Amino acid sequence: MTAPPHLGEFERIARFFAPLAAEGALGLVDDVALIDGPEGEQYALTTDTIIEGVDYFPDDPPGLVAKKLLRVNLSDLAAKGARPFGYLLTTALPPTRGEAWLEAFSAGLAADQKEYGIALLGGDSSSTPGPTTLSVTALGLVAKGKAVLRSGARPGDVILVSGTIGDAALGLAILKGEVEAARKKDRDFLIDRYHLPQPRLALGQKLVSLATAMIDVSDGLVGDLKHICDASGAGAWIYADSVPRSEATRNLSKTLKNSRARVLGGGDDYELLFTSPPSSAYSIGAVMREVGVPVTCIGEIESGVGVRVLDARKRPIKLEIAGYSHF
Amino acid sequence: MTAPPHLGEFERIARFFAPLAAEGALGLVDDVALIDGPEGEQYALTTDTIIEGVDYFPDDPPGLVAKKLLRVNLSDLAAKGARPFGYLLTTALPPTRGEAWLEAFSAGLAADQKEYGIALLGGDSSSTPGPTTLSVTALGLVAKGKAVLRSGARPGDVILVSGTIGDAALGLAILKGEVEAARKKDRDFLIDRYHLPQPRLALGQKLVSLATAMIDVSDGLVGDLKHICDASGAGAWIYADSVPRSEATRNLSKTLKNSRARVLGGGDDYELLFTSPPSSAYSIGAVMREVGVPVTCIGEIESGVGVRVLDARKRPIKLEIAGYSHF
Repeated sequence: MTAPPHLGEFERIARFFAPLAAEGALGLVDDVALIDGPEGEQYALTTDTIIEGVDYFPDDPPGLVAKKLLRVNLSDLAAKGARPFGYLLTTALPPTRGEAWLEAFSAGLAADQKEYGIALLGGDSSSTPGPTTLSVTALGLVAKGKAVLRSGARPGDVILVSGTIGDAALGLAILKGEVEAARKKDRDFLIDRYHLPQPRLALGQKLVSLATAMIDVSDGLVGDLKHICDASGAGAWIYADSVPRSEATRNLSKTLKNSRARVLGGGDDYELLFTSPPSSAYSIGAVMREVGVPVTCIGEIESGVGVRVLDARKRPIKLEIAGYSHF
Repeated sequence: MTAPPHLGEFERIARFFAPLAAEGALGLVDDVALIDGPEGEQYALTTDTIIEGVDYFPDDPPGLVAKKLLRVNLSDLAAKGARPFGYLLTTALPPTRGEAWLEAFSAGLAADQKEYGIALLGGDSSSTPGPTTLSVTALGLVAKGKAVLRSGARPGDVILVSGTIGDAALGLAILKGEVEAARKKDRDFLIDRYHLPQPRLALGQKLVSLATAMIDVSDGLVGDLKHICDASGAGAWIYADSVPRSEATRNLSKTLKNSRARVLGGGDDYELLFTSPPSSAYSIGAVMREVGVPVTCIGEIESGVGVRVLDARKRPIKLEIAGYSHF
């Protein structure tokens, strides 16, 4: 149900909005803007909108919608190594969304405020004749000059990813009735991965001095790696078989056509995808054990442009994925 | 076409969102949130959303829509005495809004960026099956502890307002065909006042040490004065005849039924409404001449609650205005 990454959207931003960008806007091609904060720190600012019927189902529990809205923004902060500070909330609600919906929605926010140690700074409430439209602008803090941008990847850096990839795309496919899970446990796990991202905040903050470039996986692994490549002026290759899959995703993949493209191209996992010099391998291993989130090496940055997906024999694989250019 | 102030909206905010508020959120009852910035300053954060068919007409020129969107946010900064710093932009566009619309829209932003010395920090672009929904989150800077809040009005303070009041409401009424202007000059002036607010940024910044409470007139003069009273724990009276009216508004008022309620209750003027001890009269006069914006004294803060509107003989006038409580 999540809209696929619109290349047209990126082009529109480049053409109409990038010329308006401030210095701290990072050319509008990163996850956040950076502005000076107090005491040697910078605020990282990010904003995301979700629309009923486009980004979530009308009958999704309002508390889950609230949490997902907050967490997709917190994930952008995680991807820069920032710690969450607070957020602004904008709600445009149709008349059909009454107080019961709002009560459950605000309860979801309250629970996640506690979970992540943040609070509401302000916002705007309005009525709309259209679908429920919800925006969060999240603020994080990071030491000045230390935010991990998309643009720092260099040839020879290894490419790493946290957690498992493809779960959320399969969860969504299950919800849409495109895919069936034989086991209830797998079904529940994958749907939960779609509904409730786990922003990798602790991991992101620990990677501030180790990662050369970082992004959260929201447009799909290959598409997001391409964002790093484009911003860094480099190319990349990854081993398709190295991409970490959960047990549930492995179970489903056995019977699923096109499962590789679903895993490598699907979005919404909100894992951290980052690059690092090979010499940092030991330190990254230590961080991984400290925060308790697995990290897997899946490939390498190289000279050139675009992302090459390779099979176990280093032969290029052709995938039908939006945002993926085959060379 | 602007939605009237929803008391229900304020109650919803109080019930569902105020309990979530951070310290700097000012209880969600002020125009902005305040967070620490660099070098003894604070950022003032504000966000406003406008929706096609609710807050503006579908065939309004996109450049004007862009300017109004920016300016209603800048007006909130002006009302705290902050200077503009930058903004985030969120657009949710239906497929019918193509590149020609976006080109004109971004040209409007570019012109106002130049006018106000600000730039775009970031944002989010998405597609919607609903009406065009546009949000700006604006950031301003103000010396720490110096922002003029809504809550500082004290009995005995005089109540002042910049510019003229009622123009935008009449401009909107003309656009909706409810009201006719005999003179083209009046018609153009009033419609322009509705389309293109002039945020009183220079005036607001000069009032930082003089005003005890301040707000911008967006919900209507009486409604916004009531916001100051509620936040300050005080009441107020104003002389209806002291409220400054433009020549165009005076011309239209002659033939218009209910013109007093339209002027005192209509929103969207984006003038500054503020309070000050009578001893500051001389300094405020000097500021007024320096920035070239007229300021008029219209009444006084008193003990009690609510806003009393008085005629020339100090008799209470009953007005049918949303947000106005008669005592």
